[in-house]
Amino acid sequence: MENWDLIIIGAGPAGLAAGIYGTRSGLETLVLDEKIAGGTAADAPIIQNYLGFSSILGLELAQKMADHAKNAGVKIREFEEATQIDLKPKTMIVRSSKTIYETKTIIIATGGQYRQLGVPGETHFRGRGVSYCGLCDGPLFKGKQLLVVGGGNSALITALYLADIASKVKIAHRKDAFRGEEALIRTLKEKQNIETLLNTEVKEIKGDRLVNSVVLFNNATGETRETLIDGVFVQVGEDPNSRLAKEAGVAVDEDGYIVVDVKQRTNVNGVFAAGDVTNHPVKQVGTAVGQGTTAATEAYGYVRRPYYKQ
Amino acid sequence: MENWDLIIIGAGPAGLAAGIYGTRSGLETLVLDEKIAGGTAADAPIIQNYLGFSSILGLELAQKMADHAKNAGVKIREFEEATQIDLKPKTMIVRSSKTIYETKTIIIATGGQYRQLGVPGETHFRGRGVSYCGLCDGPLFKGKQLLVVGGGNSALITALYLADIASKVKIAHRKDAFRGEEALIRTLKEKQNIETLLNTEVKEIKGDRLVNSVVLFNNATGETRETLIDGVFVQVGEDPNSRLAKEAGVAVDEDGYIVVDVKQRTNVNGVFAAGDVTNHPVKQVGTAVGQGTTAATEAYGYVRRPYYKQ
Repeated sequence: MENWDLIIIGAGPAGLAAGIYGTRSGLETLVLDEKIAGGTAADAPIIQNYLGFSSILGLELAQKMADHAKNAGVKIREFEEATQIDLKPKTMIVRSSKTIYETKTIIIATGGQYRQLGVPGETHFRGRGVSYCGLCDGPLFKGKQLLVVGGGNSALITALYLADIASKVKIAHRKDAFRGEEALIRTLKEKQNIETLLNTEVKEIKGDRLVNSVVLFNNATGETRETLIDGVFVQVGEDPNSRLAKEAGVAVDEDGYIVVDVKQRTNVNGVFAAGDVTNHPVKQVGTAVGQGTTAATEAYGYVRRPYYKQ
Repeated sequence: MENWDLIIIGAGPAGLAAGIYGTRSGLETLVLDEKIAGGTAADAPIIQNYLGFSSILGLELAQKMADHAKNAGVKIREFEEATQIDLKPKTMIVRSSKTIYETKTIIIATGGQYRQLGVPGETHFRGRGVSYCGLCDGPLFKGKQLLVVGGGNSALITALYLADIASKVKIAHRKDAFRGEEALIRTLKEKQNIETLLNTEVKEIKGDRLVNSVVLFNNATGETRETLIDGVFVQVGEDPNSRLAKEAGVAVDEDGYIVVDVKQRTNVNGVFAAGDVTNHPVKQVGTAVGQGTTAATEAYGYVRRPYYKQ
């Protein structure tokens, strides 16, 4: 069994920032990731809103972040999945696909993933007109025609956000009414350049090099039609990767996000969380980096300054 | 009188990140700074812990951040000081050294400044052995001998943090007892490589190209001596630049930091704050960027989604 001061689960922006702060503070710090370091930032076609990089490929930014951590001496083990956490009062156990670790403190930075529609063309055009994050990719579609898919708050908020950037936004929901907040629905209806399509299912996303149309099915009339569109924003939910944490007794909210305070502490003493897996209201590279920084600083305090343990 | 949707006061990392998100979301966004854009990040000799940049001069990072914001179309007015804020229920007024603005929402990102000792050599050797931030610069002094100056919690925490990195840490306080928390003082005393110097005042910081000694005066015995040292960490307090906010009725804590919640909201509806001026527990470039991102995202919601105003 290996012993560490700090184990960080997940090597996306939050986990890598935490790794740098943990290592620099002198804590024996290990970062585990079931995939390659860099996280979902690598999936973004282009990132223009992480301060310091005017415009960079997601993959390139992910690579720079991983390289930075490695240069700083952070120990990262890729393709090693954390499979179980055991939170004992004094020492914590992390089981991985390869071995068993004992650690004094843990930061969970396992991220999340957007739910997909599961229709033809969706995966193929991801990053080429199909997006799952309005705040991330919206500004790439200035003056364009967009389709938002979904009926909850995040779909409504995304449609409103995109309507200030795009020339026209349609929002398609398969049910006969939106399930978001009334006030949002009211605001949506007042917006001149938003068209609502209820009882409407997306059946296919089509295009050439980039998306140029969608096939829509009206489940009330049975009618199928194809409509021209420049981009599709899928907003049918997200799944935070919080199973591991939840099974170990870490509190999550109703949507499965780990509940953290301003110091990134969870309900379990010595267990912190950062990035997209948390209930922080904004999920961006910059906020993940900030949270990872805070989590590692507080984890350091937890290990080194006993009064923190109270 | 000019009209804007969002006015951001301060063009450091928090203000610039907020400027990018505000502008990209379609809000008419203006950033004001009494100095040049970039903030106190520019004062750091070298920055090795902002994810994505393995090692960069503070000045260069500040420049990259300012360039990024300008490339993103953010309107920044440098050398224009915000002198007064008037927070009326519906529209807010910002008076500057040049004109008067009306705006729908405000983000305060005015930063803070470290208190200085005011002794010979301090300014000259700033960034060349004199530092005001252990978390920022500590790792540059691996295996070195350091002096921490101060007697409160931040001095004690800095000494403990540096003791894990440096070979030896002395902590000098001018009074006959530390004023930090008991638990911290106890931990400090247990630490083998920390030496406490009470009744001790720093009279001068000396060196060649870099710091190599300090002149210490014992105010109990009257003795003056010079001791070799590689670095001096001054921890005698910080002054957040919160006067403007405070005068306008924005709540600050006992140390003058603006009190914010996880959405960067202050006690005043429509007024947000981000970065070193806030009471967030960690003050780093990464946390400032994260907070600026959150503040602008929430400010956008405040302007565009009426239900936020409740």
